[in-house]
Amino acid sequence: MIGKTSALYHCPVEFTLDVLGGKWKTVILCHLKHEPARYSELRALIPSLSDKVLTERLKELASAGLIARGRAASRTGGEMYRLTPRGETLRVALGELYKWGRTHADAYGVELREVRKARSA
Amino acid sequence: MIGKTSALYHCPVEFTLDVLGGKWKTVILCHLKHEPARYSELRALIPSLSDKVLTERLKELASAGLIARGRAASRTGGEMYRLTPRGETLRVALGELYKWGRTHADAYGVELREVRKARSA
Repeated sequence: MIGKTSALYHCPVEFTLDVLGGKWKTVILCHLKHEPARYSELRALIPSLSDKVLTERLKELASAGLIARGRAASRTGGEMYRLTPRGETLRVALGELYKWGRTHADAYGVELREVRKARSA
Repeated sequence: MIGKTSALYHCPVEFTLDVLGGKWKTVILCHLKHEPARYSELRALIPSLSDKVLTERLKELASAGLIARGRAASRTGGEMYRLTPRGETLRVALGELYKWGRTHADAYGVELREVRKARSA
């Protein structure tokens, strides 16, 4: 997490990756880039992640100013996580990481099984 | 590293980040995206990294098919690391991570001190 790291970087990518702070935070951002989500929805979208870790990562992303929690305007009940304006500035980078993964999964022999449809069902 | 991870992913970004495999490998790729480099040049470009870790990360990147080592055509002596054609497919994503870091460093109060000029000196 950015707060704990050195204030001097020798490469902008090193800094960006410290802000992103590892695989799970980036995956969370990528889901919220798609659309705001409730905690339970994120939980379902990222089945590999425990409640403890998801909660911690959400806190870290909020304290880095990349996501915020707020009441949903158009949906019933609960609070939703969404990207902040600063989080929105990661949209293009996140999109490129996403596209690369989709394009190259076959070449690496991995299976992608996205669970995005969960909500619209 | 991709070889050690599950073959099932629920989000393409999760897979991409497993291939990238952490901050230092991504930083190495970013430097090689700029231009091929000798080991000693990478060492100078990434001063935070020990020889042991740099050597390991280079091996992992080569085994993921993203970089290769070969004799330099136009420069004297030694071998150079460069992106493979598969590594080149990460160029846009790496560029976006780089741009984001440069754009937002100030907002997070971090200093960027790039050492790129090392070689041309």
